[in-house]
Amino acid sequence: MEKVNVKISPKGQLEVLSQREVSSLLDSSQSGLYSLYRNCSLAVLNSGADVDDTRSLQSAYADFEIKLLQEDRGIRLELKQAPPTAFVNGMILAGIREHLFSVLRDILYVNTHMQTERPTGDGLTHGVFNILRNAGVLKSDVPPKMVVCWGGHTISRPEYQYTKDVGYQLGLRGLDICTGCGDGAMKGPMKGAAIGHAKQRIKTGRYLGISEPGIIGAEPPNPIVNELVIMPDIEMRLEAFVRLGHAFVVFPGGAGTAEEIFYLVGLLLSDDNRNIPFPLIFTGPESARSYFDEIDRLLVSLLGESVRELYTIIIDDPEAAADAVFSGIRTVRKFRKARSDAYYFNWSIQVPPALQSQFTPTHESMGALNLHLDQSAVSLCYEIRRAFSGIVAGTIKEQGQREVARLGPFQISGDQLVVDQLGNLLDQFVRQKRLKVAAQNHRPCYEVKA
Amino acid sequence: MEKVNVKISPKGQLEVLSQREVSSLLDSSQSGLYSLYRNCSLAVLNSGADVDDTRSLQSAYADFEIKLLQEDRGIRLELKQAPPTAFVNGMILAGIREHLFSVLRDILYVNTHMQTERPTGDGLTHGVFNILRNAGVLKSDVPPKMVVCWGGHTISRPEYQYTKDVGYQLGLRGLDICTGCGDGAMKGPMKGAAIGHAKQRIKTGRYLGISEPGIIGAEPPNPIVNELVIMPDIEMRLEAFVRLGHAFVVFPGGAGTAEEIFYLVGLLLSDDNRNIPFPLIFTGPESARSYFDEIDRLLVSLLGESVRELYTIIIDDPEAAADAVFSGIRTVRKFRKARSDAYYFNWSIQVPPALQSQFTPTHESMGALNLHLDQSAVSLCYEIRRAFSGIVAGTIKEQGQREVARLGPFQISGDQLVVDQLGNLLDQFVRQKRLKVAAQNHRPCYEVKA
Amino acid sequence: MEKVNVKISPKGQLEVLSQREVSSLLDSSQSGLYSLYRNCSLAVLNSGADVDDTRSLQSAYADFEIKLLQEDRGIRLELKQAPPTAFVNGMILAGIREHLFSVLRDILYVNTHMQTERPTGDGLTHGVFNILRNAGVLKSDVPPKMVVCWGGHTISRPEYQYTKDVGYQLGLRGLDICTGCGDGAMKGPMKGAAIGHAKQRIKTGRYLGISEPGIIGAEPPNPIVNELVIMPDIEMRLEAFVRLGHAFVVFPGGAGTAEEIFYLVGLLLSDDNRNIPFPLIFTGPESARSYFDEIDRLLVSLLGESVRELYTIIIDDPEAAADAVFSGIRTVRKFRKARSDAYYFNWSIQVPPALQSQFTPTHESMGALNLHLDQSAVSLCYEIRRAFSGIVAGTIKEQGQREVARLGPFQISGDQLVVDQLGNLLDQFVRQKRLKVAAQNHRPCYEVKA
Amino acid sequence: MEKVNVKISPKGQLEVLSQREVSSLLDSSQSGLYSLYRNCSLAVLNSGADVDDTRSLQSAYADFEIKLLQEDRGIRLELKQAPPTAFVNGMILAGIREHLFSVLRDILYVNTHMQTERPTGDGLTHGVFNILRNAGVLKSDVPPKMVVCWGGHTISRPEYQYTKDVGYQLGLRGLDICTGCGDGAMKGPMKGAAIGHAKQRIKTGRYLGISEPGIIGAEPPNPIVNELVIMPDIEMRLEAFVRLGHAFVVFPGGAGTAEEIFYLVGLLLSDDNRNIPFPLIFTGPESARSYFDEIDRLLVSLLGESVRELYTIIIDDPEAAADAVFSGIRTVRKFRKARSDAYYFNWSIQVPPALQSQFTPTHESMGALNLHLDQSAVSLCYEIRRAFSGIVAGTIKEQGQREVARLGPFQISGDQLVVDQLGNLLDQFVRQKRLKVAAQNHRPCYEVKA
Repeated sequence: MEKVNVKISPKGQLEVLSQREVSSLLDSSQSGLYSLYRNCSLAVLNSGADVDDTRSLQSAYADFEIKLLQEDRGIRLELKQAPPTAFVNGMILAGIREHLFSVLRDILYVNTHMQTERPTGDGLTHGVFNILRNAGVLKSDVPPKMVVCWGGHTISRPEYQYTKDVGYQLGLRGLDICTGCGDGAMKGPMKGAAIGHAKQRIKTGRYLGISEPGIIGAEPPNPIVNELVIMPDIEMRLEAFVRLGHAFVVFPGGAGTAEEIFYLVGLLLSDDNRNIPFPLIFTGPESARSYFDEIDRLLVSLLGESVRELYTIIIDDPEAAADAVFSGIRTVRKFRKARSDAYYFNWSIQVPPALQSQFTPTHESMGALNLHLDQSAVSLCYEIRRAFSGIVAGTIKEQGQREVARLGPFQISGDQLVVDQLGNLLDQFVRQKRLKVAAQNHRPCYEVKA
Repeated sequence: MEKVNVKISPKGQLEVLSQREVSSLLDSSQSGLYSLYRNCSLAVLNSGADVDDTRSLQSAYADFEIKLLQEDRGIRLELKQAPPTAFVNGMILAGIREHLFSVLRDILYVNTHMQTERPTGDGLTHGVFNILRNAGVLKSDVPPKMVVCWGGHTISRPEYQYTKDVGYQLGLRGLDICTGCGDGAMKGPMKGAAIGHAKQRIKTGRYLGISEPGIIGAEPPNPIVNELVIMPDIEMRLEAFVRLGHAFVVFPGGAGTAEEIFYLVGLLLSDDNRNIPFPLIFTGPESARSYFDEIDRLLVSLLGESVRELYTIIIDDPEAAADAVFSGIRTVRKFRKARSDAYYFNWSIQVPPALQSQFTPTHESMGALNLHLDQSAVSLCYEIRRAFSGIVAGTIKEQGQREVARLGPFQISGDQLVVDQLGNLLDQFVRQKRLKVAAQNHRPCYEVKA
Repeated sequence: MEKVNVKISPKGQLEVLSQREVSSLLDSSQSGLYSLYRNCSLAVLNSGADVDDTRSLQSAYADFEIKLLQEDRGIRLELKQAPPTAFVNGMILAGIREHLFSVLRDILYVNTHMQTERPTGDGLTHGVFNILRNAGVLKSDVPPKMVVCWGGHTISRPEYQYTKDVGYQLGLRGLDICTGCGDGAMKGPMKGAAIGHAKQRIKTGRYLGISEPGIIGAEPPNPIVNELVIMPDIEMRLEAFVRLGHAFVVFPGGAGTAEEIFYLVGLLLSDDNRNIPFPLIFTGPESARSYFDEIDRLLVSLLGESVRELYTIIIDDPEAAADAVFSGIRTVRKFRKARSDAYYFNWSIQVPPALQSQFTPTHESMGALNLHLDQSAVSLCYEIRRAFSGIVAGTIKEQGQREVARLGPFQISGDQLVVDQLGNLLDQFVRQKRLKVAAQNHRPCYEVKA
Repeated sequence: MEKVNVKISPKGQLEVLSQREVSSLLDSSQSGLYSLYRNCSLAVLNSGADVDDTRSLQSAYADFEIKLLQEDRGIRLELKQAPPTAFVNGMILAGIREHLFSVLRDILYVNTHMQTERPTGDGLTHGVFNILRNAGVLKSDVPPKMVVCWGGHTISRPEYQYTKDVGYQLGLRGLDICTGCGDGAMKGPMKGAAIGHAKQRIKTGRYLGISEPGIIGAEPPNPIVNELVIMPDIEMRLEAFVRLGHAFVVFPGGAGTAEEIFYLVGLLLSDDNRNIPFPLIFTGPESARSYFDEIDRLLVSLLGESVRELYTIIIDDPEAAADAVFSGIRTVRKFRKARSDAYYFNWSIQVPPALQSQFTPTHESMGALNLHLDQSAVSLCYEIRRAFSGIVAGTIKEQGQREVARLGPFQISGDQLVVDQLGNLLDQFVRQKRLKVAAQNHRPCYEVKA
């Protein structure tokens, strides 16, 4: 199929931009904003295609361009050499068109309103709030029903079908879905929920995707996503999930999923958050039993038996998983109501600075991870979270891939007990094809030793 | 799961009934209306369950009852001993609730407004029109985009997946789906289109199911159907399809699908209808190639080569099939526009009396079919249509099954050439499991001989 | 301004008509339906103009024609030599366009579905129900809030302003308005309520007009009316008000208003209706005090003191009137809820046959009125209602005017007490210009004597 | 009536505020934001009452309080000792409730997003743009149809009725209304248009009110206003009108209206704006003829005959005025379309710095006005605009009234010709009661001399 040149109008929600905003996006020389905007737009257009490697996408569409035009009824976009998969009979898919304008909205907002320095603590939380509010995803007139679904984007067919089945049951129960908006466990629950909502005649079902510039190339939002938000970085993205979700379902995945699990466990172990209801379900079909067993074993061995109070594992029972989510949300609703907390944003939960601060995976920072036992359980959690984050970067993010190609695998070290367990888990991921190895040398992007 | 007792309110479109109408439905003794109403309602409630044998459904729910209650804000329904599959957490599926009220609407309308004698000719067409209008499915403010999809309700997994793929491509092109509203080829296109519509942000997608009391037990509407109409009998149902559809897609099926094909071919061979555009596509995956080959061979051998102008066969290419439908509909639109014909009802086409009159399959009427070559091609078509109709009745309709159980297989006879070909085709259906045989003696419900 | 020739499409709710229906309206020769349809359409188009004399309207537009065209997206209307007041810049007012299609809908429905003989008793009530349901005005999902407002269509400026003030207060309280849909007291409450609704951001305010072919020429619906129903005759129209309204407000008027008062009093005096809550408020500004005093005096003198329990008179206090309506409706709601009665149609009230049967005012029937005291109070009410009905006909209805022009005033006689009181009241109407006298001889259309 | 204590939820558009924003409004001690917010809210609540003197309002409700509450489904407002006129049966009018939340939105936005220093030039225009966009009034999917209506808020009954008549004709033509949102000429066109829209079945009619903190107390928005924006000061308010409006209608008024006329004339005389279509109609009933004659005479005498090309005077013909507006807007539409300008914001027009910079009327600044002829016509315009602005402040704004009470009338001086003409005009305003004089001494707030 040929690349496509086309002009696109937003529909219904035509964008209203000032002349300054238009020119800030057109200015390709200085601010670097154009390049960010172009790359995210390209990722969105690539949704549905098979390339899920950021670098190969960028080189295949090196000649892709995007431009803003001021027209009599608002702003239009001009695309040149765009991926043909975004079009049907020469017309762009309505869902992808929406996503293009969401990218525009978020990149402009962050550029215009966020201080040049990244805020911290309370300030970061307000930043997350402001971006989400500007994106229109904070809806104050709906009861709690947003289910965050996490899991791998390259999973087996039965695991994918299982995520659809759970999504279908959630949809039948009137619940909405929020994911990282790529393929696999990020797409299945939305597809299932869409059918469930159709059967329940729910026309306002929400399929909320939260991405960030570093990952969107590898995990482009599927077009069922009907609300898309681009957060500036992975930590703000994770906090956005935590603030928006009323229940959390984790499907099997690879290192990214493990990162998310350790993020949540670290969060919930914090003393500030002990009494805040936070439904957390790990679920998958029979084939995923060992994945969760291994995770569970690692968590218990490092953090003790009581960590199991934080989550429930349900194997091969979509209805039971959906029922657990449903009753968990009821508890959340009661809790918020009793405290007059907002439903649309979880202000009560405290995200510790260690989970807010940006971790940039380099050989240096990965080498400096503190995987020793002479620290609190919760601190160890944070470090392990970072280890997984680095492994994700080395495996699928543009910057990370480049570093590993240049300097070899990341070196991860620590106490024997810790690195052994971690190494075992990662080995299993590789064996189960949950973690990609480099094509040229069949090696993963890390080496673990004591 | 336990049977359910519950009261149900219509939502949004609360029904407004007069006291007379309510009492006509409650009156179980005389008119027989209650029994018809109860059985159709039970079929609707059974959607999604696996029983697709009318008689076993009726016996499993012999104690099912339905009652109308006049309440302060309109009518409510009281269900007793209803199938649990219609409920999620004790709440009826919204789609099924809608269907219950559609059944109510159509049965009341036919009972109140149709003359006691079944009309014929023009009168029958007006009857079809009136029922459809009363059901709210004639929408005058939409362009032509209704695609009638026919095909078997028990088809193989790959054939089912193919119907979803075609539906998805039709949905991406903004087209709506109309089927006989059971499982298989009647459900797949709707499911696919629902996903296509979601990606195109179409919230007004129509999934129109047209059923009739004799078949609804065996083919309950799946809950994605968001407009359901119950026509009084199979001939009015077929005419409803013909009047509403702007293009026709036939997937592989069994005898019912063959009946539909012969109905359409008979219709289009009529001199009155020569110049009316009528897009007709036979399509399926590789596994269905032989099915359409056999049908094609039978049609050509009986009716001559020129019959092929009436239809296009497309194997294993959902996009091509959708494109053919799309361009066919463009032709229909131009034709209607040029003649100021309505888009919502095909007044121009002439349905010949032989296709409108009711054929009641009995051993007598099946034995009297004229399958001889000493008649016009189009007359032969009508007779073959009836033969298939009788075979469907003997296989899955309550009345027909009972007759065959009592008196043995229908006897079908005619000229050697005709019955040979017909017999071969039917044998093939049985071999490919497209036609069920009786459990007790492994015999089909018919015998064909010269 | 010049008469207008134009084609008109319905908007949104395009009409779906069968070919038979179209031809029944086009057939000007036989059925007489065309003439009825044309005259009602002309009346609707004349809304806003000053001619309120049916005969002069008809002669001014003797060359007016209306035709139905079947077009690709439904039905269109072709108007020839239409009144220019219905148009702004050559475009028909959207409100008037809607009314044209309402006329079409109701005339077709009555012609198609009502038996050739006018039904009686229960049958008549079902006829009223069916027409209203077909017109879409029976809405089952709204709480009781329909206020029927009656009163004269030619009232003084302060009285007109007062009806607006009451309408405004009703609108602020979220109530809807139903009137006979002409000018004066039929327009003021709607205009006032429209402003009240706007301030309360109510976009679904209902301004329901109920007319009939005999009166629509003299009282064309003002374009604020957003639901228009044409009942076949005055008695069915009055019953429609009674079945639809949740409270009744009577403003000052002339003989027509007196007819309505005696209709309601006759209805409420019936033993069947004793315990059914039926809020009835007579209200007007200071200038209307004598009007209601006279009516009250006549009612008490003929029917006894207890008749006052049926109504409340409120002078010059729009807020008090609106509060009385509001609390009356609360009682109605409780009553219906307790009995599971529908909100949208008052099935409980019994309309006695004497109020349902058609009274055709002729010199014979007017002369035969039984205005004697040797009958029950309620019977006397019915007769007085008829007397007023005849006077209205002789004053403004086409048929009645013609009779009086030909044969002189109607002769009304009865017991001294009755005719004295009645005569006094009518004299007062004439003095207060509430009743028109013939231009040529300054005489009213009746003579009253013992 | 008693003052009201009540809690209020926003409806539909529940506000989503961050904890920081809530606390900035609650903090009464420091920022002064609370006081601004409270006073604007009180003004909004006072809509419909008769007090139109800011100071007497504030003293009558010195004990009024407003508080924000964070509740489970968003923000609520708590009012204490609020004016009873805002309530019907204890419930706040929906329109006033909306206005309360508009005030909240705009005050927060200006406080959060506008730099501490007031921007100038381009920056000011972007400020206006941003406030309007945040308020949701820039709608990119509608064609040009916003008619700005200016004129006095205390005008005679016939002049008020005339503004309603013009508004009605504008409404019939599908046009929207934007005013300064007080009484008189700011309310009449909206009321008229509301009826016009109702007859045209337009449910999306816009009644946009633009106010500012200094004037809102004296001119509270009437509840028909369905979009309310509070601009930070009078110059940004005037620029907002200019950027939003597609045509401008000026009804008779007093000094405020004269200010607006000189603002527009000054603007249109600027060379930058020569070729930009800008429909400007002065219109009123017969009684307003002299008002416009005097204004016209002053303009011509100071600026020459050619100034008349900028405006059209239409006396006593609402339909002609509406037609002139309608055809003017058609020209605007063509012009914008040809240049791909936005419809929703007039970027092309250049507002000169002299009209953007804030003029604070004090005895000093009023004394320093340059009303001499030794300057360009356009500069003289700007100065006269300021003179009228000061007179408005001295007459009805809180700050100005206080100054005049303390230091006596403003002293205005300049060349004989200028001050004579200006003096005459103002004298006429006083005689025609278009300008209020101080109650205690019957003197206006200014003295004019050469």
